[in-house]
Amino acid sequence: MNELPLHEAGSRLKKVQQAIAEMQADACIITSPVNQYWLCGFIFDGFLFLFPEGDPLLFVKRPSNIAGERMKPIRKPEQIPGMLREAGLSLPKRVLIEADQISFSAATRLQAALDMPETGNISGELRKIRAVKSEYELEQIRQSARIHAKVYELIPSLYRKGMTDLELQIEIERQMRLHGSAGIFRSFGENMDIFMGSMLAGDNAQAASPYDYALGGAGVTPLLPLGANGTLLAPGATVMVDMAGNYRPWMDDMTRTFVIEHAPGIAYKAHEVSINIHNAIINTFRAGALCSELYLLAEEMVKENGLQPYFMGTVQQAKFIGHGVGLEINEPPVLTSRSEEILEPGMALALEPKFVLPGIGAVGIENTYIVHENGLEKITLCEEALVVLA
Amino acid sequence: MNELPLHEAGSRLKKVQQAIAEMQADACIITSPVNQYWLCGFIFDGFLFLFPEGDPLLFVKRPSNIAGERMKPIRKPEQIPGMLREAGLSLPKRVLIEADQISFSAATRLQAALDMPETGNISGELRKIRAVKSEYELEQIRQSARIHAKVYELIPSLYRKGMTDLELQIEIERQMRLHGSAGIFRSFGENMDIFMGSMLAGDNAQAASPYDYALGGAGVTPLLPLGANGTLLAPGATVMVDMAGNYRPWMDDMTRTFVIEHAPGIAYKAHEVSINIHNAIINTFRAGALCSELYLLAEEMVKENGLQPYFMGTVQQAKFIGHGVGLEINEPPVLTSRSEEILEPGMALALEPKFVLPGIGAVGIENTYIVHENGLEKITLCEEALVVLA
Repeated sequence: MNELPLHEAGSRLKKVQQAIAEMQADACIITSPVNQYWLCGFIFDGFLFLFPEGDPLLFVKRPSNIAGERMKPIRKPEQIPGMLREAGLSLPKRVLIEADQISFSAATRLQAALDMPETGNISGELRKIRAVKSEYELEQIRQSARIHAKVYELIPSLYRKGMTDLELQIEIERQMRLHGSAGIFRSFGENMDIFMGSMLAGDNAQAASPYDYALGGAGVTPLLPLGANGTLLAPGATVMVDMAGNYRPWMDDMTRTFVIEHAPGIAYKAHEVSINIHNAIINTFRAGALCSELYLLAEEMVKENGLQPYFMGTVQQAKFIGHGVGLEINEPPVLTSRSEEILEPGMALALEPKFVLPGIGAVGIENTYIVHENGLEKITLCEEALVVLA
Repeated sequence: MNELPLHEAGSRLKKVQQAIAEMQADACIITSPVNQYWLCGFIFDGFLFLFPEGDPLLFVKRPSNIAGERMKPIRKPEQIPGMLREAGLSLPKRVLIEADQISFSAATRLQAALDMPETGNISGELRKIRAVKSEYELEQIRQSARIHAKVYELIPSLYRKGMTDLELQIEIERQMRLHGSAGIFRSFGENMDIFMGSMLAGDNAQAASPYDYALGGAGVTPLLPLGANGTLLAPGATVMVDMAGNYRPWMDDMTRTFVIEHAPGIAYKAHEVSINIHNAIINTFRAGALCSELYLLAEEMVKENGLQPYFMGTVQQAKFIGHGVGLEINEPPVLTSRSEEILEPGMALALEPKFVLPGIGAVGIENTYIVHENGLEKITLCEEALVVLA
């Protein structure tokens, strides 16, 4: 699984080369680990040069023991022009960089090293390309979802009376790692720090966070104000488990909710509305649908049930109910009321209509679906009802 | 501990304001989580504006429920000029940004929003300022080191015959979390991904990685080629444990090495050389020393013992033997043969002379020291000899 199949590598390169040509550039320079992995099957410290045609060139700072005709060891970007010349290539005049990911310092140094070419941003286009997955990639997401379900099924056996949210999370983290979780997972954009996922118990689900995730939580350290905050898992509260599905390089995303001993009827009702939204969306949409329509259908059902004040938070409410998922946890498309993206076959979609009930906690589920011509394939197959921990 | 004491906040702000004045700028804009936390005591999604004099202004995108006279809720950076005017301030003409951290896209958007001021880079200067810690910060590093030692002392009891490096690491990770580890820790620069630390057993210690850490390791996923790779902990091999000391916002750094049942004499000898290097450095240096001198002393002792081929790796050798540590795991100073930095009182220094022995594994220790006028204070107090796991 660590080897990137040749036909995958070829088809990805071709798509990027088409984008380079369409954006009228001479070269594209990949520096982010996610896109290096996606294009090469491995990560290195250095610069991956792609051209509208022909093979890529890799200028590699580390590891120092690389070998291969297309791999050139370098110490600094200033060596690149000379090595391009040696390879019979002229300095590119219009270059695409991953401007959303590379630092301002690194980008300006690279520009200067290349004698100040005109610069464009390939970050968004790469995200669009990666949003539509190959069958090889989708199969990894399905595999990850199967392991994800196995870990979630262990949760009732990990629970002990008197535990805090964090203590339960630590036991889940251990099971995740024993089942092959990579630990880290990657997200796109700034202010998206997270550690292995999110657990929200009781009123901690109301705490607003600086991060752009569906829900917040106060966290246990000011360095990471998100998720579990040491709340005792008390009878009558819910605990929402949204831990990572990072069991393959391509990830799934899944949330399930648990009840500590018992919970008020409203928790069951709102949880059912979340499941009903999932079912309505599955029954209504397939490839070709406008992403905003998914959001609007959900919003309408929330209103019908009078649950607007609790939808996607209370103090701070997220304005989306889902997102793409793949090598990063937040890929296109985003499901908001104004999304202009169209569902395409091969997209992997995490749908997460959630409610936060004051005095109780968060309820609802998140599933990952694969978009097909004829419908949405649910791949996170795991008990959806509220499960009692006792 | 989550509350930033007022005198700390005041003294940090003053140091940055002095730097702003010295760099002849009208404003400095902080966007990185680490520096926001360092200056405010909390993290937010938005822009922290500092001026050469007077109070900072916070333009906050998230969380949405912030309140305070100096905190202005915004949706986008284009709103900032109008709000500066409302606050009676003119648009800055020369602005310092964290150019080593902010993305090229975010920086150019911010520049455009502010009507294209001249731009300077404050990243390096902030790192220099943060390298010298206050007594409050040093006390956190000491506290973290005490917990770090308690976790490492559990390692022999976590070991079971027939375990892999990863299985042992998972049990250590669980103990770290139960002892208050934040999980994530922060590093400076690109290509510095890591998950909770590094464990290297046997010949996996020779594997070169793309990251700028002291040693490498192949890892278990192509998304994170670093550290444990599933190596069976076999008799005769060593396992080096360099897991994070992130028990407070300010961190320590510590490595200890274990022997599976038994190991050849060369492992004991090289391990002793590492300890001797530590002792020689403690006995020789204090505040005022040139950082390169620490490296050169270590190098000399390595040569005397004929261990150059194994020093800081084999296939790929790191060119440093230590680094500062604080809110980030890799702070200034860096200890290389050419470091021009001077040891200053209040610096926290992680010293890690290590050897990689083919067919055996990595040996050596890492301690964290606090630099004082009259010497180096060792704060990672934990058995230093090779400890047998059996």
